[in-house]
Amino acid sequence: MIWSNYLIPTVKEIPADAEVPSHQLMIRAGLIRKLASGTYTYMTLGCRTVLKVIAIIREEMNAAGAQEIIMPIAQPFELWQQTGRSEDYGETLGRFKDRHGRWNVLAPTAEEVVTNLAAGEIKSYKQLPFNLYQINTKYRDEFRPRFGVIRSREFIMKDAYSFHATPESLQEGYQAMYDAYCRIFNRCGVEYIIVQAESGQMGGSGSHQFTVPCETGEDLIVYTEDGSYAANLQKAAADPLPKQALSSQAPPPQDVHTPNIGSIDAVCSFLKTKPQEMIKTLIYSAGDEMITVLVRGDHEVNQEKLTQTMEGKYIELADETTIRNVTGAATGFAGPVGIIEKIDKLLIDHAVANMAVGITGANKTDYHTRNIVPGRDFPLTGRKVVVTDLRNVVEGDTYNGKKLLFRHGIEVGQVFKLGAKYSNTLGARFLDEDGQEHPCLMGCYGIGIARIIASAIELHHDDDGIIWPISIAPFEVLIMSANQDDPEVTRVAEQLYRQLGSNNIEVLLDNRPERAGVKFKDADLIGIPVRVTVGRRGLAEGKIEIKLRRESDRQTIPIADAPQRIEAMVRQLYAELS
Amino acid sequence: MIWSNYLIPTVKEIPADAEVPSHQLMIRAGLIRKLASGTYTYMTLGCRTVLKVIAIIREEMNAAGAQEIIMPIAQPFELWQQTGRSEDYGETLGRFKDRHGRWNVLAPTAEEVVTNLAAGEIKSYKQLPFNLYQINTKYRDEFRPRFGVIRSREFIMKDAYSFHATPESLQEGYQAMYDAYCRIFNRCGVEYIIVQAESGQMGGSGSHQFTVPCETGEDLIVYTEDGSYAANLQKAAADPLPKQALSSQAPPPQDVHTPNIGSIDAVCSFLKTKPQEMIKTLIYSAGDEMITVLVRGDHEVNQEKLTQTMEGKYIELADETTIRNVTGAATGFAGPVGIIEKIDKLLIDHAVANMAVGITGANKTDYHTRNIVPGRDFPLTGRKVVVTDLRNVVEGDTYNGKKLLFRHGIEVGQVFKLGAKYSNTLGARFLDEDGQEHPCLMGCYGIGIARIIASAIELHHDDDGIIWPISIAPFEVLIMSANQDDPEVTRVAEQLYRQLGSNNIEVLLDNRPERAGVKFKDADLIGIPVRVTVGRRGLAEGKIEIKLRRESDRQTIPIADAPQRIEAMVRQLYAELS
Repeated sequence: MIWSNYLIPTVKEIPADAEVPSHQLMIRAGLIRKLASGTYTYMTLGCRTVLKVIAIIREEMNAAGAQEIIMPIAQPFELWQQTGRSEDYGETLGRFKDRHGRWNVLAPTAEEVVTNLAAGEIKSYKQLPFNLYQINTKYRDEFRPRFGVIRSREFIMKDAYSFHATPESLQEGYQAMYDAYCRIFNRCGVEYIIVQAESGQMGGSGSHQFTVPCETGEDLIVYTEDGSYAANLQKAAADPLPKQALSSQAPPPQDVHTPNIGSIDAVCSFLKTKPQEMIKTLIYSAGDEMITVLVRGDHEVNQEKLTQTMEGKYIELADETTIRNVTGAATGFAGPVGIIEKIDKLLIDHAVANMAVGITGANKTDYHTRNIVPGRDFPLTGRKVVVTDLRNVVEGDTYNGKKLLFRHGIEVGQVFKLGAKYSNTLGARFLDEDGQEHPCLMGCYGIGIARIIASAIELHHDDDGIIWPISIAPFEVLIMSANQDDPEVTRVAEQLYRQLGSNNIEVLLDNRPERAGVKFKDADLIGIPVRVTVGRRGLAEGKIEIKLRRESDRQTIPIADAPQRIEAMVRQLYAELS
Repeated sequence: MIWSNYLIPTVKEIPADAEVPSHQLMIRAGLIRKLASGTYTYMTLGCRTVLKVIAIIREEMNAAGAQEIIMPIAQPFELWQQTGRSEDYGETLGRFKDRHGRWNVLAPTAEEVVTNLAAGEIKSYKQLPFNLYQINTKYRDEFRPRFGVIRSREFIMKDAYSFHATPESLQEGYQAMYDAYCRIFNRCGVEYIIVQAESGQMGGSGSHQFTVPCETGEDLIVYTEDGSYAANLQKAAADPLPKQALSSQAPPPQDVHTPNIGSIDAVCSFLKTKPQEMIKTLIYSAGDEMITVLVRGDHEVNQEKLTQTMEGKYIELADETTIRNVTGAATGFAGPVGIIEKIDKLLIDHAVANMAVGITGANKTDYHTRNIVPGRDFPLTGRKVVVTDLRNVVEGDTYNGKKLLFRHGIEVGQVFKLGAKYSNTLGARFLDEDGQEHPCLMGCYGIGIARIIASAIELHHDDDGIIWPISIAPFEVLIMSANQDDPEVTRVAEQLYRQLGSNNIEVLLDNRPERAGVKFKDADLIGIPVRVTVGRRGLAEGKIEIKLRRESDRQTIPIADAPQRIEAMVRQLYAELS
């Protein structure tokens, strides 16, 4: 490709709304342009990288025996109602009414559609297993799209769905995808770690997340130093905190006046206590049920663990009116004493159950209560009570006695065992050898194409620009003519461009009539792995310069050796990724 | 690929809702499955064909110097308001409100987005010309989706947009696309004709349509036998009909009572006259303007010609209340006499202007008027009056004195010169060598991927199934084991499968434990161009059978010659398409 014929709009300025390096560099290198909040156009260079990532994914998915299909982006809303996910997804679910008044969902994922499809085709165990995948546009109406293509409203995803007759077959299919994912991320040149994950809204029974560790990532990974444990924050468990003992018998509960002081921090500072001495009381609704959740004042409720405890039901914080109805008090003054009568379920985090004594809201506006003893002043057992793990792990927690460490990362892929959740609801059943009917067991497997690209840039860049892994670089080689006004320079540059091209090397020829300084800066910015410079001075000695983007060394080599040397460099860069 | 590992759900029954062969065969051969009205999932075989068509298009677009990008499917509604097309598209435009209350359009095409993009990047004539294309999902909320993937709500389209500084450059870019389209359709194995077309809603200045002639096509092509003229129905012009002369002076207009008789046919039968003796009077609104259109009773208004006459404005038939306000009568009784006072424009088709005398509505409910003389009883000239071509051509019309012929077809692609319509409105301007600012001149170029596939099937099938052009067949070769229970048969079949595969031939191996009859039927149905049969009887003589899907001849050849012979057949089939 010849630079001057193409739109490669590099820019010097860092875009004001770009917080992370990948977002900044994707704009600056002319890979993407923003259309609206959370939607981006991939320009020529960006599109080339997208197509390369897609080609790698397609190869590995096919090699793993998966078969490609294309499902519509507009999905019937009724299917989502059948699985209940029309509720679970909340406002993130994009939807529209067509001209005949039917509601459609803009696919955020495709379990409903693929299970409905399978339900129509599967009759016998003989047809199983199979794995259907697509590489297609998804839409999620993120409340706050950000970090460029990392959290966007519209994105390209590879989503795969496998169907099985037995748990062993599901495990085999799951492992095949797990292995394919390792090969895909290796080939794309992104270093990743695999952590245990919750299956959350997917409603499954097991999951792993592929995460690229980097400072700017939104996801938190929790692990032990010896590598024996790694999970994402949603999944990570901690050893229970030790049961606290009191030195003497606790005095009876005592109300204190805390006028307009509802937040944990405000109460702590007013009563001169610490958050870990407090019990946070949260009121949720789950359909018709009212739920109360207790966590320690310094802990956060883990939404995934809460959802798991409630068996996948859609749970949301109650509104102010409901809170007032349940507690008889304004928001900020809820407490566990006596609340059991008014609710359907009391969910208590281990850490609260193990407190000796705590401070909590008094269920009376502007009042808190001291000296609350779990088990004495509110029940720890009973029909409505569940004591379990409900919180995010925090610094200081341990797992199997080992200290938990934290690391940021970008989730690039996830694999799930779904079990029979969708096939049961949507009727994807098969007859076994004995003519008995069973629901298929399913797995699902997602990869975010844009996130691979963004995390490759997060991992591989410097102050001057991107340093592409060769496998997903828009081009393998950049040839620059340093003196475009010199006919001999342009002649040699063009000849080399043609030579390499005829050997299937992907070359971008920068023949713009710009100063060499501008071209060098752009070359560093767009980050093509191998840079070849043809200049007047070198040519006088029959030589050109070659340089890897990731290294500062330059080599001056005879023109005659150039094609062979460059091809060897390209081959070597690929070899490092396999 | 091995049949028994994949989901290839062939069916015997013709689906009840499939009217045309391509729709029937795409369902029966397991290429697609319907999800909802106008949306289809491409199954494994269908997806392979889609990817092949896409690969051909991508190669030819790149070879023509176009550069690929990916634009979002969710487009800001404001851009469509700026060009006025939010109105022009009517209910066909899919739209949705996001969680922040902003309206989004589901891309039916991307002139607005690409011009907006170009406006942000183009500064100088030095950047021009360029051509940006994408292969991406489109949505059009068709009132009545039908013919399977031919008229669906959601579909994959290749859309390209070129930007130029001069009309000469636009012409060059337009011709490059025109030529690329010819190569694309040739390579895909669909015979096409190129006709002049209107640019309609696109608002451009010239257009050609690539149409595959076939009986079941929705589009009408109009042409002269000598090939000197070909246009689609929207564009086709006819020689004006001769001016009719009266034998004597026409008597004055005379009202006749036609109680509850409003339609042309009813009036004709009641008054014992013919449609060509009547003047049809139609009331339209175009924004604030009221328009009256006159065509002969046996003619149909051509919406494209009407739109052109109104300079691209969105025009719709007036509702009953408006008709009553303008004419003072119920629908069905409008007429041209005296109407000029009440409207903004009177558009008269040539054929009406050339009538000697006619019958028309009386602008009085339940009355028509005889003896209406154009020019005497309503004006043919004046500030508000336009006499022009406003109707569809019909059987019997001529062009340059040659008889017009009609043929059905499927539109598979169209190229447009847009001129400056979008660049003016959306600010895509450049500075010329003298520092003067001009709007870019644009072209746009579309291809429907699914329509190529459907029309290939319409052209190439027989009673037993599809006969794929090899270039877009899901596989090049099908190997069938006729006796799957015979280990020697399966061994030879598998060995040949591997041999051909290692030479990059795309082979499907039908190793299902089915009777040979079932396999032969499925082979004909899915239409792989080369069929290889390995059977017990042949093997006894060291032979296998090869057969082209399109021919009835079978050849029995020695096993040793098979790879070479099959590869030669494949090469020959490709050679026929280049």
